[in-house]
Amino acid sequence: MIKKISILGLGLLGASVALSVRRAMAGVKIVGFSHRQSTRQKALQQGIVDEVFDTASQAVADADLVILATPILTFKDYLAQINPVLKSGAIITDVGSTKQFVHQWARKYLKNPRVFFVGSHPIAGSEKQGLDYARDDLFIGARCILTYDATSSKTALRKVKRFWQQIGCSVQMMRPAEHDRILGMVSHLPHISAASLVNTNPLKDLYNAGKGFMDCSRVASGPENIWVDIFLTNRKAVLRGIDKFIAQLKLFQKAIAKKDAKRLEKLLAQARQKRQQLIDFKIKRNELF
Amino acid sequence: MIKKISILGLGLLGASVALSVRRAMAGVKIVGFSHRQSTRQKALQQGIVDEVFDTASQAVADADLVILATPILTFKDYLAQINPVLKSGAIITDVGSTKQFVHQWARKYLKNPRVFFVGSHPIAGSEKQGLDYARDDLFIGARCILTYDATSSKTALRKVKRFWQQIGCSVQMMRPAEHDRILGMVSHLPHISAASLVNTNPLKDLYNAGKGFMDCSRVASGPENIWVDIFLTNRKAVLRGIDKFIAQLKLFQKAIAKKDAKRLEKLLAQARQKRQQLIDFKIKRNELF
Repeated sequence: MIKKISILGLGLLGASVALSVRRAMAGVKIVGFSHRQSTRQKALQQGIVDEVFDTASQAVADADLVILATPILTFKDYLAQINPVLKSGAIITDVGSTKQFVHQWARKYLKNPRVFFVGSHPIAGSEKQGLDYARDDLFIGARCILTYDATSSKTALRKVKRFWQQIGCSVQMMRPAEHDRILGMVSHLPHISAASLVNTNPLKDLYNAGKGFMDCSRVASGPENIWVDIFLTNRKAVLRGIDKFIAQLKLFQKAIAKKDAKRLEKLLAQARQKRQQLIDFKIKRNELF
Repeated sequence: MIKKISILGLGLLGASVALSVRRAMAGVKIVGFSHRQSTRQKALQQGIVDEVFDTASQAVADADLVILATPILTFKDYLAQINPVLKSGAIITDVGSTKQFVHQWARKYLKNPRVFFVGSHPIAGSEKQGLDYARDDLFIGARCILTYDATSSKTALRKVKRFWQQIGCSVQMMRPAEHDRILGMVSHLPHISAASLVNTNPLKDLYNAGKGFMDCSRVASGPENIWVDIFLTNRKAVLRGIDKFIAQLKLFQKAIAKKDAKRLEKLLAQARQKRQQLIDFKIKRNELF
């Protein structure tokens, strides 16, 4: 039974987890940590959490579930910090967008064999940053990928699965390497594509952009500190993704250069049809966007 | 005074122009042409147009304003067909996404010196196709680029400007070559990027995509016949756009390969800040999306 949840980091995701727990898990105590005083104050004033602390160690005391919701490259330090004070039986998870490094760090820094780590990646968010944009329905209809390795506890995995389902997610399980390979392609690569579309053009030309451009580039408005950590902890998959993406762009380039209408139509139809299959799948699974 | 408007092609854009005229220009007669009987029937039954015809020539008789809203590569034939029957003083425009070819064809096929061509590109639309998705507010808050050349009539240009403004657009004027260069970068390139993002991944991996991917790839659900014509009539700009885009992608690739966090942060911040300036500009101009 989860009676107390501790959330480290009260940005968009951390605060949305808190609000979602409030909505869907009556009676669960929620405590939070933020390194910013203004964030701690707001979180308390707005009733997002029941208590706030200015150190991670204080925030995790007695917690049944600890959720890391800070930028990925800070996880290592927080795991080392909280390790000595975690209660026996505590489950640790996170909301990070890459999973191989956090599993490595958990194996290295969580010394108590009765403390269990499960990786979580709720595929939900916004280009908006911070607690002010937090929502109690952010995870409803979102897919959440749980990651496990040979050392993972099945009981902990089951509890974390139940947790995300309670706040509205559709849960999928994977190995960290598979997660990072796939998300490198379907999330991290599109982010680079979005930012590159913006960077390719002078502002004056962008004034003529329409809704299509705005949608294609939306994620590029996201916070760079979060994304630098994602790219640096998933380098291989992202580098390979960019190569594969460039190869696809060059198929279009070649067809246009050769005025090959049939080939162009085939490339476009392939994309349209596959995207429709994706939409059909998401509708069937009740995964919303 | 525009008393009768003839729309050639009753797909999403043509039918949305008709509905917008109904909403904003009381008393103007709207007639339409479609080569599909089912479309002609629907357009009439749903009151989208007052009359429909199965030939372009019949549809343009007595029209003050003729709007080409078929795929771009069909414009040439329709201009040749309607040339003999256009009334003196008629203004011809279009809703095509590339402008250099249509100006060439207008100069070649519209023989009457009292018939005036102005290019129009309302930057509005949807990945959805066909009259069923037409909306009477599609152009409200949309930018519409008008194109002109040395042969263009200033009076016609002013009238076409007034027309788009009446149905809700913010109007911008350009030479066709400038239009095609800019739109190649901010619209046609993003379409190729969207389709390539989908084509890069097997469907099974795409099941793990979230809202970010769906937005980045939305336009790839658009109709391929429309887009083949766009790419084939704007080859130079699109080919150059892909080259420039790949160069930007490679900046990210290099920074990730070198674990250069500072450089990555700078590339991401550049995109975020520029996109914010774009949003600020659009808000100031009341251009919505």
